[in-house]
Amino acid sequence: MIKNKIRRKELCNKIMSPREASMFVKDGMTVATSGFTPSGYPKAVPLEIAKRADEGEEIGITLITGASVGDELDGALTRSGVLKRRFPYQTNKYSRNGINDGEIAYQDMHLSHVPQFISYGFFGKIDVAIVEAIAITENGGIVPSTSVGISPQAIRYADKVIVEINTSQSMDLEGVHDIYMTENPPNRKVIPITSPGDRIGTTYIECDPNKIVAIVETDITDKVRPLGPIDGNSKLISQYIMEFFQWEVKNGRLPKNLLPLQSGVGSVANAVLGGLVDSNFNDLTCYTEVIQDSMFDLIDAGKVKVASGTSFTPSEEGLKRLNDNMGHYAKHCVLRPMEISNHPEVARRLGVIAMNTAIEVDIFGHVNSTNIMGSRLMNGIGGSGDFTRNGYLSIFTTVSSAKDGDISSIVPMVSHVDHTEHDIEVIVTERGLADLRGLSPKERARAIIDKCAHPDYKPMLLEYFQAAEKGRYKHQPHMIKEALSWHDRFLETGSMKLK
Amino acid sequence: MIKNKIRRKELCNKIMSPREASMFVKDGMTVATSGFTPSGYPKAVPLEIAKRADEGEEIGITLITGASVGDELDGALTRSGVLKRRFPYQTNKYSRNGINDGEIAYQDMHLSHVPQFISYGFFGKIDVAIVEAIAITENGGIVPSTSVGISPQAIRYADKVIVEINTSQSMDLEGVHDIYMTENPPNRKVIPITSPGDRIGTTYIECDPNKIVAIVETDITDKVRPLGPIDGNSKLISQYIMEFFQWEVKNGRLPKNLLPLQSGVGSVANAVLGGLVDSNFNDLTCYTEVIQDSMFDLIDAGKVKVASGTSFTPSEEGLKRLNDNMGHYAKHCVLRPMEISNHPEVARRLGVIAMNTAIEVDIFGHVNSTNIMGSRLMNGIGGSGDFTRNGYLSIFTTVSSAKDGDISSIVPMVSHVDHTEHDIEVIVTERGLADLRGLSPKERARAIIDKCAHPDYKPMLLEYFQAAEKGRYKHQPHMIKEALSWHDRFLETGSMKLK
Repeated sequence: MIKNKIRRKELCNKIMSPREASMFVKDGMTVATSGFTPSGYPKAVPLEIAKRADEGEEIGITLITGASVGDELDGALTRSGVLKRRFPYQTNKYSRNGINDGEIAYQDMHLSHVPQFISYGFFGKIDVAIVEAIAITENGGIVPSTSVGISPQAIRYADKVIVEINTSQSMDLEGVHDIYMTENPPNRKVIPITSPGDRIGTTYIECDPNKIVAIVETDITDKVRPLGPIDGNSKLISQYIMEFFQWEVKNGRLPKNLLPLQSGVGSVANAVLGGLVDSNFNDLTCYTEVIQDSMFDLIDAGKVKVASGTSFTPSEEGLKRLNDNMGHYAKHCVLRPMEISNHPEVARRLGVIAMNTAIEVDIFGHVNSTNIMGSRLMNGIGGSGDFTRNGYLSIFTTVSSAKDGDISSIVPMVSHVDHTEHDIEVIVTERGLADLRGLSPKERARAIIDKCAHPDYKPMLLEYFQAAEKGRYKHQPHMIKEALSWHDRFLETGSMKLK
Repeated sequence: MIKNKIRRKELCNKIMSPREASMFVKDGMTVATSGFTPSGYPKAVPLEIAKRADEGEEIGITLITGASVGDELDGALTRSGVLKRRFPYQTNKYSRNGINDGEIAYQDMHLSHVPQFISYGFFGKIDVAIVEAIAITENGGIVPSTSVGISPQAIRYADKVIVEINTSQSMDLEGVHDIYMTENPPNRKVIPITSPGDRIGTTYIECDPNKIVAIVETDITDKVRPLGPIDGNSKLISQYIMEFFQWEVKNGRLPKNLLPLQSGVGSVANAVLGGLVDSNFNDLTCYTEVIQDSMFDLIDAGKVKVASGTSFTPSEEGLKRLNDNMGHYAKHCVLRPMEISNHPEVARRLGVIAMNTAIEVDIFGHVNSTNIMGSRLMNGIGGSGDFTRNGYLSIFTTVSSAKDGDISSIVPMVSHVDHTEHDIEVIVTERGLADLRGLSPKERARAIIDKCAHPDYKPMLLEYFQAAEKGRYKHQPHMIKEALSWHDRFLETGSMKLK
């Protein structure tokens, strides 16, 4: 069945069962895999590793992926107790619980840092790479499936490589990838991308055939996640951003067709891009991580000619639409290694407009993207910092309150900082948009409270700020004793509101 | 006197007194100037602006510089009440007090963001540029003096340009500068630097001669700051870093001659580089902001062939040494626009080793570089974030306690975050070095407390951490009610110690 997908024929003698292949992964090893969002991650071999542990074998591993992956990897390995250490991002409820329960050691990393942590040796030796592919070329090159992520580095730096050929993935994916790798300093060269659609590499990942120890066949599908419907709040957020873009164009600070757009993962991010479908903007470009459903809409509407990312991240319906029309969408998309999709050099050169979601924002413009109430890990920072820090403009969105109004997303001081006051230009909630450019901390506080806060919390925020302003130091006035009191109140009473 | 320095002869009719030149600066204007650290900033014209205000004229301005500048600019304009708004960094005691008293609106910015904020129009219109120069070339190009900073953008984007020709500056500076400017996206090109010494531009800043409204003569010298002596703590910090470098070379994670070094401003940073003079490292390279005294030692010792920065920042003794041997040092140095010296693209490509100083660090590895006790601005973030986020390795140094032991520099939670847990690989104090690569937050806490904390505070830190670990969420365990209690105690009792 998969022999015709292995064009380098001598590699066919590496075909084996997932169970046999799984035996190359042993207790204590560091394993790097394909996968970015629940797309293109290995499935059959991880399930067998989990099964071995379930059957009583002592096995624990360190797992490095591109970003989040599906349940066959994070979920199964967590439930079986195999997952001991995890880099750099996750969204699976089992792994998240394992991390918050203190059972999995997790380092939450900027995604652009991960590939070079591998190539620099900062993670130590990579024992095994497990990568999903749709084919192996005549020269032994590995053709990825629906994502690229860290696969190029996993394959180059691992001692052994296991390939999962997934027959459920469309063969029309071949040609969509653009694989380019950097050397380590001092030998690193210029990345010659000057436009989002530029192709600078190969359509496969080079691999020393001698490193391939196993090839397995599977047809387990990507376990994509549903996208929430575009609700009223998301629509309002999107509208404020569209108005802001129009204002910037009018004032000559953005070209008529904007600049390359980056939009995070999830429903609000999908809605924000969705707002462009009905806008009067044309000839848009995208230089982002994930290509979600609304990107297909933008392509079909003729608004986007080329979208660059590292992963197709469709909803369940989007996956069907993608697979039914892969030839069409592949022509308008480039899937790059995440080192390149998230690269500071390229994000800054192209002038990416970064749009990401916050858990909470404080009155001075610091953003928490990762830890609820300071300690409870949600997903991770992902690539938000890569684009926020290096792009043209950084926009963070959040709904102004959560938990039926018991949490204000605008707080006196965030309980964890992922993006600082130095990094962010615009905050948007369903209440409005605060343009923070050129503002001092106190001016930012007034703008954020005025434009973005929920009305239930506005008076409390003003009261905090005005009391803090009476203190000795007025640059970024805080009352240290009170700064985190809203979080404390929530933890004690279940609400940030005063009783 | 300065006519022979104005090689484009028709510009000689723009020579006027500093007072006359100052009249181009009017109330409400935005003024962008040369200067980066107290080097190469305009002096004569700002003193006259201040004098006009002292004489009763109503005049307030927004001031944008490269970084900190000398007292003739920040100090004089603050004392006279002229300075109303300030970007992006400062160290002058008068301006710092003005900011902390709430009289000056200040936005603390990543230095690499400032040039593009000007070119994108995010600061609004730049009315006047005032730049110090040593000469004007035949084609009207402006030859900077001891720093470059934002001068290229100030000159290109300002309506009017005032040039201060400073006769106290060595004419041997000509040739040391390498001026290269980027275009705005979507027309931005690759910055073709692949080695710290690469020269890619001109030795002068292009300027439309019609924009030059005034040329003044001055001989006021740069008001450089003394560098503290290399004390015992700085020596210990430097030694730990040298040992770390040796370990990394031994393990193949750094080349024998390391990678381009960046070191922040000030005495500890100077001491760290100083440690390399007596080390067995050779053929070192530097890609940094400021060229301080120890760089001259490294050049004289033959350890550094080319140092790239945006400013000469010598001590008082260093300034004499520099001026007496400018021809010699200029051969081994390149002064670039700060857009290029701090550029994410170049820092990441070259693999800069970033070494910067922290005010405080928390047990999970977040760094406060700017605000003492959360609200009292010290200087600003400067370029530390540019290098930290995009370099090969980020090292932060701090002495483990301050204020005669009443402040611990290692705290449960920092009171302001400038660099997050995602950005930092190594923390060093005079007590030891914590290598945080690949560690989960809890592992980082144990390493930082064990290696870096002052013995007086170690038990208290452990107690906090162990109590927090008993909480519900164990990824990055905090007790929100207690997290900032050390700062609160200091503010109330004058010490973080328990009575």
